[in-house]
Amino acid sequence: MAEQATRGSSTINYKDGGMRDNKEYQTRLRQTLEAGEVELLSPEMLISSRDAEHPANLIPSLCEAFYKLGWVTGTGGGISIRKGALAYFAPSGVQKERIKPEDLFVLDLRLGTYLRYPLPLKPSQCTPLFHLSFMKRGAGACIHTHSQWAVLVTLLVEQELQQRTAKGGFATWDDRSMGGITDLTGAERSLSKKRWDATPGRDAVLHRPFRISRLEQIKGIPAGQKHTDGYIDDVDLSKIEPSRPGYLSYYDTLAIPIIENTAHEEDLSASLAAAIEMYPHSSAVLVKRHGVYVWGETWVKAKTVCESLDYIFQLAIEMRKLNAPWTED
Amino acid sequence: MAEQATRGSSTINYKDGGMRDNKEYQTRLRQTLEAGEVELLSPEMLISSRDAEHPANLIPSLCEAFYKLGWVTGTGGGISIRKGALAYFAPSGVQKERIKPEDLFVLDLRLGTYLRYPLPLKPSQCTPLFHLSFMKRGAGACIHTHSQWAVLVTLLVEQELQQRTAKGGFATWDDRSMGGITDLTGAERSLSKKRWDATPGRDAVLHRPFRISRLEQIKGIPAGQKHTDGYIDDVDLSKIEPSRPGYLSYYDTLAIPIIENTAHEEDLSASLAAAIEMYPHSSAVLVKRHGVYVWGETWVKAKTVCESLDYIFQLAIEMRKLNAPWTED
Amino acid sequence: MAEQATRGSSTINYKDGGMRDNKEYQTRLRQTLEAGEVELLSPEMLISSRDAEHPANLIPSLCEAFYKLGWVTGTGGGISIRKGALAYFAPSGVQKERIKPEDLFVLDLRLGTYLRYPLPLKPSQCTPLFHLSFMKRGAGACIHTHSQWAVLVTLLVEQELQQRTAKGGFATWDDRSMGGITDLTGAERSLSKKRWDATPGRDAVLHRPFRISRLEQIKGIPAGQKHTDGYIDDVDLSKIEPSRPGYLSYYDTLAIPIIENTAHEEDLSASLAAAIEMYPHSSAVLVKRHGVYVWGETWVKAKTVCESLDYIFQLAIEMRKLNAPWTED
Amino acid sequence: MAEQATRGSSTINYKDGGMRDNKEYQTRLRQTLEAGEVELLSPEMLISSRDAEHPANLIPSLCEAFYKLGWVTGTGGGISIRKGALAYFAPSGVQKERIKPEDLFVLDLRLGTYLRYPLPLKPSQCTPLFHLSFMKRGAGACIHTHSQWAVLVTLLVEQELQQRTAKGGFATWDDRSMGGITDLTGAERSLSKKRWDATPGRDAVLHRPFRISRLEQIKGIPAGQKHTDGYIDDVDLSKIEPSRPGYLSYYDTLAIPIIENTAHEEDLSASLAAAIEMYPHSSAVLVKRHGVYVWGETWVKAKTVCESLDYIFQLAIEMRKLNAPWTED
Repeated sequence: MAEQATRGSSTINYKDGGMRDNKEYQTRLRQTLEAGEVELLSPEMLISSRDAEHPANLIPSLCEAFYKLGWVTGTGGGISIRKGALAYFAPSGVQKERIKPEDLFVLDLRLGTYLRYPLPLKPSQCTPLFHLSFMKRGAGACIHTHSQWAVLVTLLVEQELQQRTAKGGFATWDDRSMGGITDLTGAERSLSKKRWDATPGRDAVLHRPFRISRLEQIKGIPAGQKHTDGYIDDVDLSKIEPSRPGYLSYYDTLAIPIIENTAHEEDLSASLAAAIEMYPHSSAVLVKRHGVYVWGETWVKAKTVCESLDYIFQLAIEMRKLNAPWTED
Repeated sequence: MAEQATRGSSTINYKDGGMRDNKEYQTRLRQTLEAGEVELLSPEMLISSRDAEHPANLIPSLCEAFYKLGWVTGTGGGISIRKGALAYFAPSGVQKERIKPEDLFVLDLRLGTYLRYPLPLKPSQCTPLFHLSFMKRGAGACIHTHSQWAVLVTLLVEQELQQRTAKGGFATWDDRSMGGITDLTGAERSLSKKRWDATPGRDAVLHRPFRISRLEQIKGIPAGQKHTDGYIDDVDLSKIEPSRPGYLSYYDTLAIPIIENTAHEEDLSASLAAAIEMYPHSSAVLVKRHGVYVWGETWVKAKTVCESLDYIFQLAIEMRKLNAPWTED
Repeated sequence: MAEQATRGSSTINYKDGGMRDNKEYQTRLRQTLEAGEVELLSPEMLISSRDAEHPANLIPSLCEAFYKLGWVTGTGGGISIRKGALAYFAPSGVQKERIKPEDLFVLDLRLGTYLRYPLPLKPSQCTPLFHLSFMKRGAGACIHTHSQWAVLVTLLVEQELQQRTAKGGFATWDDRSMGGITDLTGAERSLSKKRWDATPGRDAVLHRPFRISRLEQIKGIPAGQKHTDGYIDDVDLSKIEPSRPGYLSYYDTLAIPIIENTAHEEDLSASLAAAIEMYPHSSAVLVKRHGVYVWGETWVKAKTVCESLDYIFQLAIEMRKLNAPWTED
Repeated sequence: MAEQATRGSSTINYKDGGMRDNKEYQTRLRQTLEAGEVELLSPEMLISSRDAEHPANLIPSLCEAFYKLGWVTGTGGGISIRKGALAYFAPSGVQKERIKPEDLFVLDLRLGTYLRYPLPLKPSQCTPLFHLSFMKRGAGACIHTHSQWAVLVTLLVEQELQQRTAKGGFATWDDRSMGGITDLTGAERSLSKKRWDATPGRDAVLHRPFRISRLEQIKGIPAGQKHTDGYIDDVDLSKIEPSRPGYLSYYDTLAIPIIENTAHEEDLSASLAAAIEMYPHSSAVLVKRHGVYVWGETWVKAKTVCESLDYIFQLAIEMRKLNAPWTED
């Protein structure tokens, strides 16, 4: 399943690593430079900066911090940061606590081509997933963790679904399926259900999200999201209103959709896209028995939301051990 | 609900950030300087010190340490340190492990005005809560954590209350409601009950505190508190006797009151004030499903008490998992 | 209950801090110097060394490491290292992760007097306990932790004893009371029982120790101990044989005695001394609802044994949660 | 039980530490140099390198990292890295977080002799176990941890086996005994059973491995192994195909064999060798109530596989607490 970026007449399948063939890389780069679209002297300039806040410096230091948090154990997980139309991310299968700027890939989201492709490394398999957050949410950064708390939360929701389905419950859409939205009017409910039913790939989204309420920490999660359907340079993000303003309140219910896991990480794209459609306000998508994807307008927002969610997932697991319910319904 | 500071004829609503309007800041500052009340050349001097023990240096380093302890995950929680009449604290919604001295706010508790207000940041929403500890307890520092152990402890007390109330128990004040005080005379009991009943906002305080006994670590918690009812520069703290001298003994019962959580952090003021009245000896107040506020005469005392409490909360949770009771009654 | 050190005609009650009265300190120090027993130019020389392995440098760095392990939270716990006849230890009630060499106390075990007493600090309340390990075990270092795992282990043994006693079990001495010794002859059993019954203060020792078997990590615990009954400079430790040679084997049962906690830490001396008599092979004594004391010939041995025990305590708690028994009997 | 290395006419029992006798060391070293087989000026050159990736620098830094992960508490566990025919490893019984390059042993696997033997230290008791991974798997590094999660996993499998055996189950070989292999043909099953039954020492291998399925993290575990039966310089590892290519997929079942623990670590050799025969695809062997051995072609692969396994063991324990099954059968 190829993730494709279309601009003008060119179709670039970046997922398969257009840069592997060195010649193609040269051609593309020359075209890019001739077009004057980027002022680029060498790919190395993309990752050379004394600014600690530059993505090429941030990604190594954040990955080291994430390692200590147990989010990227055994090379799993990672982060991508977008700087304008350029997305920076780590290679696939490397020790996340030991990444250096020179290991990073740089993808031009407009051109759909890699401006930096450090052979013999391969780009992270999360790339198309990160891409979705940039395209559909206008995210500035996207984090993927293998946090054990995230995994356990999905296991418990799965468990509950199996028990309920056996008892005949949750077979169809209901208000609770949406999570969070507790003040729907009849018309909104009807619209929501229609949109839900029309989403392709919705079968890979669990019928019920992870839901929890009445915890101070949910106030750290945005209430809504900005939606974009084109490439991020075609839209002025600052003019787009989020689906709901501000952050969740203490009396809201946090709902994070869960998608089925797949054999290959890149194959999560379709279900991740579906979950994003079906849960238009969500800052994150859980992947069953796998982990979580979390995004935000900036790396700071993505990281603090990811931290708050991880805190909530861990708390939820402890609550379950102590027989404290997640919600009141 | 505005927190107000009155001095002479001026009424300053510092909670709403008088400094946002730059002109007002200039006016106030000039007044302050003309009055000769503070010798202030520039707001930057307030946060420039080579002394590692200066609040402007301590707050960043302590917040980083608290982050590693899991107390201030996802920008939640923080610390305020008082130096004479000046209170230092962090901005709202920033990564606590990355604070720098230049991010700090400085509030003059006598004037009720900010001497340093680093726009575009906003002061921590905990400010009125920190303020209460300075005013009513003469605290030198106040810590707020979102520790998961604190949250879980409140959940378990809530659970117990629901079970007991259903069975008809704990509906009225009794000795155990007070916690800690196991040697009340009849007259003291009567006085305590009267004071309790007269406290405004007492309905936001859970009918039963978190109580635990027979743990060595409770010897790290002060037995009593100093009480002040004016501003901290109007009283000579060294002359005030604490409500009980020294620290809890191994045979005492530790009791930490719990208040209901509110939609907005600043709205906790009334119930925090009530809990402080109702539990005159307490070094801390738990907030249901939220965290804990802990204070002390100095930052060292506030931190070590906070550490001991967090240790006790975690132990209490493990004890519950292993069916070991918290108290003997 | 005063801990006393007798040498010649002088009786020095060091527990009460002979150094508080500065004059007395000067007198003693002069006597010490005149006697030529120590070559001491100034107390500061005792804590000034560039050698990272000097007790004055080790104690701060080890306390910081212990803090990260959760052993000395909220100023609790600590370590004392003996260098010849001099014992180094930390003050009472200070943040263990921030100790500096200049905070340390130095006690001359022969003279029973402090050679360094940094006013206004007070010596650790653990001093008489540390002292016991130097006197009775010839220890070179003694560690005291408030580890939550140690506390929980004592809670579970207490729980079990309550259940068994109610059922009429464990009321008298039996082989299992001794722990570890599974190959006693009839004569040895009889001798052990006699010694046990003759130990003063044995009622403060729980009738049953913490016992666990068949874990690789118990091979890190010494099988026996050296016993001394005089001061450490009166005996040549290298000539004393340990009660049993080497380390526990995989097929041994580890047994750590547990003593009742007391209101004041220094009052643990009698029961700690009793436990040391009753469990002649033990490297450690647990204190109920409080923590553990662990000693060794050197700081390295004390630390590695303490680590292995803490690992075993934590494992024991997890085993209990998973219904895996600690021993086969 | 002596581990022996045979080359030409010489038989060297390296396990007993040929280097203890300094003369013998000199003789061997001279022979080695005369034979021109290694260009060695001094043993110190073996451990002197400015390259952070040199085994002499990697082992200390990795051991410190493993200490923080709880893998080598109390001197237990460790790592050996092979550089060509030279194996580097740490001494026995030392604090793993404080190892220095000069503490390391260097064993020449061809000669079966130590090129560096830093008296009075003794080589790790894991040496013959590490050796097995070099010989039989062509490993470039082998890690041994005492991780509590590994220990608990073995306890739970033991528990299950006791329950099943009592019910008459699992007494003979079946498909599930092999783990992982879910697509055996009849002929392969028959061959596998024959090989299994013919393995000497198979009684020390638990009848059932630890098995878990449907977790993203199992994709970090190699599906197969390279097999060598001679010394590592007699074979060209790059020409040997692994028993199965690539890594486990999400739909595979991970199976890690478990061997019984023994009184002496070096006595694990026979059962470890048996487990390696019986589970030809396995990257690791668990040791009951003890820990785990994990190997890989390089130190990076060994470490990342070890991390993924530890993550899976921990998750498995949490799953058990939450009643989530490890596999679907």
